[in-house]
Amino acid sequence: MKLPRTVDWVEGKVVLIDQRALPEKLTFVECESVDCVTEAIKKMIVRGAPAIGVAAALGLILSLKEGPSYDNLVRAAEKLKRTRPTAINLFWAIGRVLSRAKSAISMGEDLYHAVEDEALRILEEDERTNRRIGEVGSELIEDGSTVMTICNAGSFATVRYGTALAPIYVAKERGKDVTVVALETRPVLQGARITAFELGLEGIPVKLIVDGASGYFMRNHEVDLVIVGADRILRDGTLYNKIGTYSLAIVSRHHRVPFYAAAPTSTIDMSSKKEDVIIEMRDPSEVMFMAGRRIAPESAEVLNPAFDETPPDLVTGIITEKGLIRPPFEESLRSVMC
Amino acid sequence: MKLPRTVDWVEGKVVLIDQRALPEKLTFVECESVDCVTEAIKKMIVRGAPAIGVAAALGLILSLKEGPSYDNLVRAAEKLKRTRPTAINLFWAIGRVLSRAKSAISMGEDLYHAVEDEALRILEEDERTNRRIGEVGSELIEDGSTVMTICNAGSFATVRYGTALAPIYVAKERGKDVTVVALETRPVLQGARITAFELGLEGIPVKLIVDGASGYFMRNHEVDLVIVGADRILRDGTLYNKIGTYSLAIVSRHHRVPFYAAAPTSTIDMSSKKEDVIIEMRDPSEVMFMAGRRIAPESAEVLNPAFDETPPDLVTGIITEKGLIRPPFEESLRSVMC
Repeated sequence: MKLPRTVDWVEGKVVLIDQRALPEKLTFVECESVDCVTEAIKKMIVRGAPAIGVAAALGLILSLKEGPSYDNLVRAAEKLKRTRPTAINLFWAIGRVLSRAKSAISMGEDLYHAVEDEALRILEEDERTNRRIGEVGSELIEDGSTVMTICNAGSFATVRYGTALAPIYVAKERGKDVTVVALETRPVLQGARITAFELGLEGIPVKLIVDGASGYFMRNHEVDLVIVGADRILRDGTLYNKIGTYSLAIVSRHHRVPFYAAAPTSTIDMSSKKEDVIIEMRDPSEVMFMAGRRIAPESAEVLNPAFDETPPDLVTGIITEKGLIRPPFEESLRSVMC
Repeated sequence: MKLPRTVDWVEGKVVLIDQRALPEKLTFVECESVDCVTEAIKKMIVRGAPAIGVAAALGLILSLKEGPSYDNLVRAAEKLKRTRPTAINLFWAIGRVLSRAKSAISMGEDLYHAVEDEALRILEEDERTNRRIGEVGSELIEDGSTVMTICNAGSFATVRYGTALAPIYVAKERGKDVTVVALETRPVLQGARITAFELGLEGIPVKLIVDGASGYFMRNHEVDLVIVGADRILRDGTLYNKIGTYSLAIVSRHHRVPFYAAAPTSTIDMSSKKEDVIIEMRDPSEVMFMAGRRIAPESAEVLNPAFDETPPDLVTGIITEKGLIRPPFEESLRSVMC
């Protein structure tokens, strides 16, 4: 794989690919403070559920440079948690670092080293986990297949490999021809800007279409399966992912095209209920302006939910590092997660 | 209604609202030659099935200024027909003017006057027809309803009133509160740029969303019915309309939200089969660039179908100037059209 890590820890700094600049250029942002990381998550310099989780974990190391106290860590964690409410990986990664910090304190270990160790574990595990998701998911992809996807759940949404795109990379490595139909994914266009870009760098053919065209291509029998990422999956299999995922799941079901979510088990939230999940409403300007130009009249009220909820009965299976999870999800997830 | 005519015949010129400039400004293009009208249709200065038909008819008057011969008329008609292949109204309007011209010649009438008379009839009829579509369709809209629509099948897609939006204008006139959820409609953004603009001018509240969010809002019970326009409707009810319409119809069916097409009977094509209908593939640059900025890598292959096909079983009814047409469409359309 030619792609560099999306999030990395280099000489005491958090190094992030600046995803706002894609596809024009591949540039990096270096953060030396946790505030820098917090802003990077808010502004979507780094995005994608797993990548956000890793960035937050690494950000917590930086928070201790400003004073190696548990209080500083908790304050930083609170700030990081307020950046984006929907993806669970953020809360999961922060929780993991905090609990390691707590036990370090009670065991008399060095706080900084414990936090650094845990955050770097999360970083390394993400890459290995995604590789494994790729291996599991590649079994679903036959030679000559066309896979449709939305948004970017690729290498750029994780440390490396991606979730929804990992099976495609592994399938290609194993000699299978795969074509990807990428939905451009309004409003932020992660499909056009990021998915098409990373697949292009890896030599995988991409057909780029507008979001509304998913039905057109399925009706013409040009899609074998759909794989999407996930920002959160509940214990019953309810899937939270980029806005447009739910409509895509309905359209897939209508055409009997299998619809898979790919995610590390860290995306699975066994404790929340649907009522607990906050769908982030983002700034109307993301829809209202394009490259600085107003595309809608001021009189229009823009509603810009960043995610939607797909009920489990529309999901064929969940591709995780622990194997392919099939319905009934409540049962299968319990056995995998416990 | 405050909106001016979208297409008009003023002092021997075809006057068109320049729809490329919306929503920034309401400006007009004046055509004194048929080539100007041909280019205006190609470049989508004028768009929308009924408006294109009227513009072409008026363009034919201009062709005779270059020499009042039937040959000139036929040559101009051929050029006009090659502009956009999917909407039937273009062919219908041109056919009507040509057959009037033929009979004028055989009757010894003045060719120019016959062509002008027929084209102006088409212009006037369009406004009256749409008003009637509005009256028929307004019966489907209850006070306090929310109507979802895609693209622009409003006043700007016709001479005046529109097709899908006409029922909303009439409902409002009759004292009903109506809210519209407008899909922005990539790639050309007619929903954001044109629908939101014209509804705003007429004082109708608009919620603007990205195309992928239709399912999200239906799942939250925020949509009472869907009304879309049509570029062509076959005798069995198969609907050709803006890309995204088919996916929207599937999502509507999934939520049991009624899905109506609104169109003048001139949009109904009783003779073509599905195999005969050409889906226009438009320039990839419409998807690839936004306000001049590249949004996808050069390696991606962009597929840009402008329309899609919705099978009749997903259509609740067709709102026409001759009344609401219900399934079975083959039977109901035959009785209306013959």
